[in-house]
Amino acid sequence: MADKSLQDKEKKLAAEKAVEYIENGMTVGLGTGSTVYFAIRKLGEKVKQGLKIKAVSSSNVSTDLARSSGIEPVSIDDAGEIDINIDGADEADRDFNGIKGGGGALLFEKIVALNSGRNIWIVDSGKLVKTLGKFPLPVEVIPFGHKGVLKILEEYNPVIRKRGDSYYKTDSGNLIFDLNMNRINDPLALDMELKQITGIVETGLFINIADTIIIGKENSTEVLFKK
Amino acid sequence: MADKSLQDKEKKLAAEKAVEYIENGMTVGLGTGSTVYFAIRKLGEKVKQGLKIKAVSSSNVSTDLARSSGIEPVSIDDAGEIDINIDGADEADRDFNGIKGGGGALLFEKIVALNSGRNIWIVDSGKLVKTLGKFPLPVEVIPFGHKGVLKILEEYNPVIRKRGDSYYKTDSGNLIFDLNMNRINDPLALDMELKQITGIVETGLFINIADTIIIGKENSTEVLFKK
Repeated sequence: MADKSLQDKEKKLAAEKAVEYIENGMTVGLGTGSTVYFAIRKLGEKVKQGLKIKAVSSSNVSTDLARSSGIEPVSIDDAGEIDINIDGADEADRDFNGIKGGGGALLFEKIVALNSGRNIWIVDSGKLVKTLGKFPLPVEVIPFGHKGVLKILEEYNPVIRKRGDSYYKTDSGNLIFDLNMNRINDPLALDMELKQITGIVETGLFINIADTIIIGKENSTEVLFKK
Repeated sequence: MADKSLQDKEKKLAAEKAVEYIENGMTVGLGTGSTVYFAIRKLGEKVKQGLKIKAVSSSNVSTDLARSSGIEPVSIDDAGEIDINIDGADEADRDFNGIKGGGGALLFEKIVALNSGRNIWIVDSGKLVKTLGKFPLPVEVIPFGHKGVLKILEEYNPVIRKRGDSYYKTDSGNLIFDLNMNRINDPLALDMELKQITGIVETGLFINIADTIIIGKENSTEVLFKK
């Protein structure tokens, strides 16, 4: 999608649709990223209008955004079960699998998701793909001994993510390797294989996690429910 | 083993036997723990006598001990392949599988081990067991969302390790859960299962890693080589 203003419009449409699912008294998971931005903003408006929620954030970035929007997140370990988690995805397919971690928050995002009763992904129409893998797959890697992991992953064309001149560090102080595979034929098998590697903390493959995908389209939204 | 002074004697016997394998010019992995203590001390003596080695440490504790023994460790990511790694084990069986992490350094210990051409375990005779699991199995867990992981592991009677009044933190800033299973029938299957769980960074099960086990006995050592 070349048109950034149309993309932003679609993100906003999807995000605001997701917020309609949030009811008084719920505990809400806040994902991370440019689409979730619109959801947090909208939630903040509703909170100012009287909506009562507890929120659990998946990153320092989203915690800051929530606060500036009038929402004070609680710790995931104090929150109990999260009712609905709203998060974005870098790629999603119609089997409800996806790639996340473009923003670097994949580990905490996955933990929040797995502690949530319901997971809604919000995406612009360009994120919906037939096959995952065109978007480079992020994996979170322990810095100590990362060169050994780089070698093991050679066949997947790993690139260590940078921020300016230094390596990007996650909220847990780890590195992100972006794996350039172009096409992932068997996401579940790849995820299991990667997670066996010592030094890999988590992968950006989200399998069997989302149950609802809201796709922003030019002037509307499409909502997919998992059967 | 009730007699601590005999146990220490056995640890020292095993440790000093392992150091005999270290040759001039080698890169040596330094494990962590009360048995490795004797190996680092002995290595330090030899370095003072002229032995030239590069050393890679698996913990802040071992780095400090190496320095005070006259050895300046290099970063694992600058070291290249490690020739021989000397480490202890909390339990080892005759299939060369073991449990490690009693000292809390299991993650870096495993990374050092997997970057080593040869892995020697040094143990007192009380550490050799028929079946693993009497020693509680340590797993390293991300603090964020750790209560969810605690619940998933319920059947294994997890206890969050403490140091004084607070939770013990690893060199990576994570928690250690000690799993009380009493008996591990299939270490490989358990390891693979645990590593699939989001939030678990690494387990203390070391499978197919050691190739040599040196057992300190009352007045001698027994050396087991993997076939």
